[in-house]
Amino acid sequence: MTLKTVDDYRERVSKLRPKFFIGGKRVESLNDHPISRGVIEATAKIYELTMDPKYSEVMTAKSHLTGETISRSLHIHQNTDDLQRRLDMARMNSQKLGTCNYRCPGNEMLPSLAATTWEMDRDLGTDYHSRFNEYLKYAQKEDLVVSGSVTDTKGDRSKRPLDQDPDSYVHIVERKKDGVVVCGAKQHSTGAYVADENLILPGLSCQKGEEDYALAFVVPNGTEGITYIGQYNAYSVEREYAENLHYLGNPIYGQRETSLIVFDHVFVPWERVFMCGEIEYTQRFISRFAKTHRMNCGGACKVGFMDLIIGATELIAEYHGISRKSHIVQKITRMIQLNNTSLACAVSAAYMGKEDPPGSGVFMPDDAMSNLSKLNTNESFWEVLALAGDIAGGVAVTMPSEMDLENPEIGDYVSKYLKSAVPAKERMRIMRFLQNWVAGLHGVGTYQGAGPSQNEMLILYRVTDLEEKKRMAEELANAYY
Amino acid sequence: MTLKTVDDYRERVSKLRPKFFIGGKRVESLNDHPISRGVIEATAKIYELTMDPKYSEVMTAKSHLTGETISRSLHIHQNTDDLQRRLDMARMNSQKLGTCNYRCPGNEMLPSLAATTWEMDRDLGTDYHSRFNEYLKYAQKEDLVVSGSVTDTKGDRSKRPLDQDPDSYVHIVERKKDGVVVCGAKQHSTGAYVADENLILPGLSCQKGEEDYALAFVVPNGTEGITYIGQYNAYSVEREYAENLHYLGNPIYGQRETSLIVFDHVFVPWERVFMCGEIEYTQRFISRFAKTHRMNCGGACKVGFMDLIIGATELIAEYHGISRKSHIVQKITRMIQLNNTSLACAVSAAYMGKEDPPGSGVFMPDDAMSNLSKLNTNESFWEVLALAGDIAGGVAVTMPSEMDLENPEIGDYVSKYLKSAVPAKERMRIMRFLQNWVAGLHGVGTYQGAGPSQNEMLILYRVTDLEEKKRMAEELANAYY
Amino acid sequence: MTLKTVDDYRERVSKLRPKFFIGGKRVESLNDHPISRGVIEATAKIYELTMDPKYSEVMTAKSHLTGETISRSLHIHQNTDDLQRRLDMARMNSQKLGTCNYRCPGNEMLPSLAATTWEMDRDLGTDYHSRFNEYLKYAQKEDLVVSGSVTDTKGDRSKRPLDQDPDSYVHIVERKKDGVVVCGAKQHSTGAYVADENLILPGLSCQKGEEDYALAFVVPNGTEGITYIGQYNAYSVEREYAENLHYLGNPIYGQRETSLIVFDHVFVPWERVFMCGEIEYTQRFISRFAKTHRMNCGGACKVGFMDLIIGATELIAEYHGISRKSHIVQKITRMIQLNNTSLACAVSAAYMGKEDPPGSGVFMPDDAMSNLSKLNTNESFWEVLALAGDIAGGVAVTMPSEMDLENPEIGDYVSKYLKSAVPAKERMRIMRFLQNWVAGLHGVGTYQGAGPSQNEMLILYRVTDLEEKKRMAEELANAYY
Amino acid sequence: MTLKTVDDYRERVSKLRPKFFIGGKRVESLNDHPISRGVIEATAKIYELTMDPKYSEVMTAKSHLTGETISRSLHIHQNTDDLQRRLDMARMNSQKLGTCNYRCPGNEMLPSLAATTWEMDRDLGTDYHSRFNEYLKYAQKEDLVVSGSVTDTKGDRSKRPLDQDPDSYVHIVERKKDGVVVCGAKQHSTGAYVADENLILPGLSCQKGEEDYALAFVVPNGTEGITYIGQYNAYSVEREYAENLHYLGNPIYGQRETSLIVFDHVFVPWERVFMCGEIEYTQRFISRFAKTHRMNCGGACKVGFMDLIIGATELIAEYHGISRKSHIVQKITRMIQLNNTSLACAVSAAYMGKEDPPGSGVFMPDDAMSNLSKLNTNESFWEVLALAGDIAGGVAVTMPSEMDLENPEIGDYVSKYLKSAVPAKERMRIMRFLQNWVAGLHGVGTYQGAGPSQNEMLILYRVTDLEEKKRMAEELANAYY
Repeated sequence: MTLKTVDDYRERVSKLRPKFFIGGKRVESLNDHPISRGVIEATAKIYELTMDPKYSEVMTAKSHLTGETISRSLHIHQNTDDLQRRLDMARMNSQKLGTCNYRCPGNEMLPSLAATTWEMDRDLGTDYHSRFNEYLKYAQKEDLVVSGSVTDTKGDRSKRPLDQDPDSYVHIVERKKDGVVVCGAKQHSTGAYVADENLILPGLSCQKGEEDYALAFVVPNGTEGITYIGQYNAYSVEREYAENLHYLGNPIYGQRETSLIVFDHVFVPWERVFMCGEIEYTQRFISRFAKTHRMNCGGACKVGFMDLIIGATELIAEYHGISRKSHIVQKITRMIQLNNTSLACAVSAAYMGKEDPPGSGVFMPDDAMSNLSKLNTNESFWEVLALAGDIAGGVAVTMPSEMDLENPEIGDYVSKYLKSAVPAKERMRIMRFLQNWVAGLHGVGTYQGAGPSQNEMLILYRVTDLEEKKRMAEELANAYY
Repeated sequence: MTLKTVDDYRERVSKLRPKFFIGGKRVESLNDHPISRGVIEATAKIYELTMDPKYSEVMTAKSHLTGETISRSLHIHQNTDDLQRRLDMARMNSQKLGTCNYRCPGNEMLPSLAATTWEMDRDLGTDYHSRFNEYLKYAQKEDLVVSGSVTDTKGDRSKRPLDQDPDSYVHIVERKKDGVVVCGAKQHSTGAYVADENLILPGLSCQKGEEDYALAFVVPNGTEGITYIGQYNAYSVEREYAENLHYLGNPIYGQRETSLIVFDHVFVPWERVFMCGEIEYTQRFISRFAKTHRMNCGGACKVGFMDLIIGATELIAEYHGISRKSHIVQKITRMIQLNNTSLACAVSAAYMGKEDPPGSGVFMPDDAMSNLSKLNTNESFWEVLALAGDIAGGVAVTMPSEMDLENPEIGDYVSKYLKSAVPAKERMRIMRFLQNWVAGLHGVGTYQGAGPSQNEMLILYRVTDLEEKKRMAEELANAYY
Repeated sequence: MTLKTVDDYRERVSKLRPKFFIGGKRVESLNDHPISRGVIEATAKIYELTMDPKYSEVMTAKSHLTGETISRSLHIHQNTDDLQRRLDMARMNSQKLGTCNYRCPGNEMLPSLAATTWEMDRDLGTDYHSRFNEYLKYAQKEDLVVSGSVTDTKGDRSKRPLDQDPDSYVHIVERKKDGVVVCGAKQHSTGAYVADENLILPGLSCQKGEEDYALAFVVPNGTEGITYIGQYNAYSVEREYAENLHYLGNPIYGQRETSLIVFDHVFVPWERVFMCGEIEYTQRFISRFAKTHRMNCGGACKVGFMDLIIGATELIAEYHGISRKSHIVQKITRMIQLNNTSLACAVSAAYMGKEDPPGSGVFMPDDAMSNLSKLNTNESFWEVLALAGDIAGGVAVTMPSEMDLENPEIGDYVSKYLKSAVPAKERMRIMRFLQNWVAGLHGVGTYQGAGPSQNEMLILYRVTDLEEKKRMAEELANAYY
Repeated sequence: MTLKTVDDYRERVSKLRPKFFIGGKRVESLNDHPISRGVIEATAKIYELTMDPKYSEVMTAKSHLTGETISRSLHIHQNTDDLQRRLDMARMNSQKLGTCNYRCPGNEMLPSLAATTWEMDRDLGTDYHSRFNEYLKYAQKEDLVVSGSVTDTKGDRSKRPLDQDPDSYVHIVERKKDGVVVCGAKQHSTGAYVADENLILPGLSCQKGEEDYALAFVVPNGTEGITYIGQYNAYSVEREYAENLHYLGNPIYGQRETSLIVFDHVFVPWERVFMCGEIEYTQRFISRFAKTHRMNCGGACKVGFMDLIIGATELIAEYHGISRKSHIVQKITRMIQLNNTSLACAVSAAYMGKEDPPGSGVFMPDDAMSNLSKLNTNESFWEVLALAGDIAGGVAVTMPSEMDLENPEIGDYVSKYLKSAVPAKERMRIMRFLQNWVAGLHGVGTYQGAGPSQNEMLILYRVTDLEEKKRMAEELANAYY
């Protein structure tokens, strides 16, 4: 077995020294900064779950390259059962962390790479697929954390890369004998600065002339020329300055943390380059990644989040003594409806999955259903947040902190006036947990992560056979006997 | 092979002489009245599809009792694949008919009977299950049309049966040596008057004292004491008086036709009684039937209808020259989203199905997902109608008829002013087809058929494990390191 | 006082002999055909209400031309109070008729004509306004029914009039010394064939070269060359063949009836032409008409319809013994919410109305609010229908008819099994009334009448001052102290 | 003129020494703590606007007691025009502040007090009204900031006050000769700790036995026994620790700040008690306050917020080069639709307002429309947030901070990769402004402030005349001729 322990990971990460900035300051030790520490803890938890025999069916798989037991985070789906287990993993990890598990996007790029490098080699006689397989064997053997990044910074979105600052999209600035030199930046990257490796996919469907942008590669964390700039917002400050993490809504793992990865003349050796100029394949890379990502991150992951939100909301309803009121029951049921709908779409995406491209051995979720899972989740998640905020009451945003509870001058007041059917502390903990959702980054994060609705709608329209539906209607409308 | 041909069915139905009334008049010949004729044609089409080798995987199954190839309409699901094929059948039949296939509710009661009679025999030592199996073998061998009815007339719904006219719910008025005598009526019955047999399930969850209402049985069409009173509305009149069915929106099959079945002291022999007084099992009968019905009739059947509506709407958009407008594309995509969501829920219900009760050999869809499929469809179907009406334009409700087109005095005007990118007749046919949906009975019919939303919400709430979700939230909110 | 009695109107209409066809047949006597009879009855009811002192504030006004008391249906709004009374009239008429009052569109064109002819005369030195005032004085003096039509048949909507059959839009084919000759057809015309006069407005915003299409005029009912072709659908047939109108959902007035008006070389004398070639004013004609129509017909009229639907739904809930159930109360409240929202928008449109163009003396509702009233109603009305169908139950579409109740063989059955907390007949009457809405033409009719949502959205975007909102956001985002 | 300048206010507030805690620490100087400073700045801005001649029609009124020009924040509405100006003020203040103006709830309690004390004196012979008028004259003369608080802490909401900790609701613990002694706490209080006076209304509709809870009074800020405990969340920390407020989303004014006000044996002299034991009037107090508050704070105030969000979203769309894309235009239009709908309801509430109770001289908004304004806003506001987050893109939650922009090591990267059609800084300012909304407290705050939807639905149902609607439906359904 090639699985690594959580301690292995902790040791590896403690040696990383990426150029990483947060809130305008360089972070010297990933483990000592409360923000990167949360990301490490989330990643570590995945290692723990993977080693837990209770979860082995979900968290591990058998490598199709070596036959070894590997983390499912490094697996290429071999059949629709693999797709089902993959979404089970996404949901469970979300339930356990209440935030990003940080191995998801990288994981979802691997099958896309496996399928598309296979296809390019078949069509073009390149050797990307064997390179990729070598890399994958290495990653599986070392049980590495491979982060994945796709979204370029884009600049003015009404312009193509060559009509503006050419670095608005990651691209090759120099081709050398032993590799390529890369410039640009990827935004919204989850987990990159605590990962072992950073995998980069093209973020736009390239046209003729944009060959330098048709680029996929992987580099180790902290490769020379890379700078990570962390996101920074109110929740970042709250975590940065917290005396005691217990006061926060998701004490250990926090909100989702992403970063901007800047590539300033980064050298990538050929054996880590998986696409280089094949513009007509960029769309396939993206859409294969997207449909996998939309089933898991767009769908099942958020099902796990909604499980937590529903659970916390029901707790608060019980604490407030209103959980049996008919309108509360209706609203909780509505939350369940929305959550199960996202799940149903993800399950169907896996059930209706198929080998793509045929002959590659790689299984991909159904196009329509995976996009649908994300599309439905986009609206649902906001509605679930709104319902949670409805049931929790205004105190979800007006509550004092546990620090007030511990202040001897006013602790008794807080204890007296924040209690309900349960003591103040118990209620405040769950309320703070809910605050983290209903007044946090997750509404937008869920909507945008894995792509906003308009993207899914375009694909849904494109993959639907309207001709067949038209034909059926015509047949009935003109029927005779 | 026991499958019967469509001619067999037509011959059998031509001999039926039920007491059947429509619009205040007795219908002497089912085949000659335009309304019952439509119902017969729809049923006949199912026989044709069943014999068509192209559809055999969907339309037929292997009997678990005899090993013979039978119509899937008489099959008891043996595994989750059976559930998937069952929903494929529901969708396809709707696509082919644009209305009820009339064998659906009866079909969906059979597994519920198989499971619940097995359970009663196991628990109570009754012999309902063997009776049922005997009956099922007979029905399969003769390839009979078995209609199913469940909804009582209920009277004042705030009152239990014994607190009002006792006939408000179907019940036993006399127990005899060789059978029981039954009174009451079932409403909304689809296809009963052109079926070979009428299967009756209890329509309420019985309480102590209501043993006479805990009653399931089957009787041949036209059994003495039975009267069928057909629904009657504008679409009934339109069909009744149509000079030419081509002028109608769904020329052959029409809108969905139901009837009120009145039981006025109807005798049922014991071998056709499958429950008689076991009040504590009525709820299981109903909920097993309901979840099957909600996956198929609530979900997949309406997916087929929505396929037709989407197809017709896209045709009209093309006829009007607006199909490439961005807001039209968005709306068509929204229709596809809603349709696929219903499908996803039905597919998940089948995929997550299980043997219920364990040991019975009968597979049932997942409780949550089947109810969800119906629940989502309820709202979606109205929205799909609204979007179809939006895109079709006002002419969907203000259009003259083809009779005007054929009138020599004004035919040229109609031809000139009703044309668009296609000739007037072509456009009018599809527009009339759409009118049938957007200004017809299907909005309410879809919402109420298989039960309105409140029923599904109650079940969704009941079957959800809120304790588990609460526990997960508490764990995270109180986590330490 | 110039108000005419209902008998005056009945006498006038009894003398009309328009070329009017319905269901492929010429209608000889408007009063004897059940469909045109319904339209006459609705129009007649308006005359009755106008003479009723109880309603005089709403139904009458003082002519700004003569100072006489006139029907508000022929009034030009002089202030915002006039706008408020106008919407009160729209709502009340809908409550009293449950269908179109048939004087609405014509009425709403008059202020648009008053304003725009005034503007043309001012800008261009034409004399349309004085012509119009002469005509208006005549119409007010005789208290005429002036129908209004605007929507051309359009053919292929992706093409301009001159790129396809030129008659796809109403236009001038010949200019003569004493008037113009007109061809084309207007669709969705309400009440035209029972009106005294037919008023015609341009249906497209004309461009250079389309001067022949920039045309407004009025002609008496039945002018030579005009043919009316009535809409024809299931509800038309039901009314046409009804033995007894009591069996129908809206016995006297029926569903809304419209017609296609064909102009085949119709001569219009100059004194009845109110625009002839002024292309740059067509958009103003349309948008002034549209905003008035959207406040009244789009908004307030449907508020009246929803009042009826809510009332009927509440009755059914009481009949069924479920009106106190919490989910029913929530749904009724939701219906009230939607209804009041439409009303609020209409009221605001009137309150925020202003003189348009300044100096004309004509008051117009606020652009944004009037369009909003219609926009909100479009979606709401479908939702109100869906909720009514939810609460009413499946019997709303599966009910037998009163003819069954009167049939001696089965009348007792119907009486027994259709009763609830009230006798069968009472319940069936209200249920049929609801059926008329939830399974009728009103969903699409409401959505499309006065223009579908996309039209209102375009205007809402156009009339909103986004610059001002941007400025306010910038100011705050960059504020210092 | 009695209006005070902003400097007067600043001087008064600088002398206040309330027992005020935030984040577990006592705040010694209101002006020096970044959180209370923001609240003071918002309040001060209102004084500036009030003195600005440009806004005098909106911001000032003529006292009905003295005839003096006073701040509208201390005015009692004398007619429907006053109601319209009041909502104009609410909207404008929100546009100018992007947060609470902190004078709103107190202001909205004054008319309720005026009306209900008048009613009590009339019915019961008490002298509350004259006391209140004396107090009001004093407040107007000194142009005081009067905060208002109504929501008790409630404890277990399934229990009445006397069935749990009696302090769960504010109440009298002792009646003395010269006044009363009060215990309990009010939550969600806006602006109390920077106000001159704290006005307290009963938060529940009292029943027999709960006379001690039927209590309305006013006390100066910092009266002995009062402790204020501020809300504390991520945004509080962000402001508390900000090196530079420019980095925040609403630099000067921040998010909305509330506090818990604890009353620990607070003495209130009789001349400041406006209700004491009159249980049957508590409901009227609450509902009069509620309808005023729902028109203004629930409706118009949020219209102002939505103006800002729409403006910022349009700016970002332009910065990103996507503002002309059809789906963006549709979404901006949808935001406008929702915003205008809230405005329309508020405007109607004012237009349809009336003297309540008759004879009191106090005008109140319409019950249905004011509640509707709030009800519609509840859902709309979340949808507007979701649409803003959709259009803004993921960077709304993943953006680095301006501190990164200013760090010499990475400033160039941030500048390069955060720019779009405008420089990085400009884009980051507006994006941070949006973040403040889409990932902040306002979703829940808006929903709960002035009461959650269920409250408004109950009132909407109660004030609707269903009998009238039923009657109209019956009349039509049973009509004859």
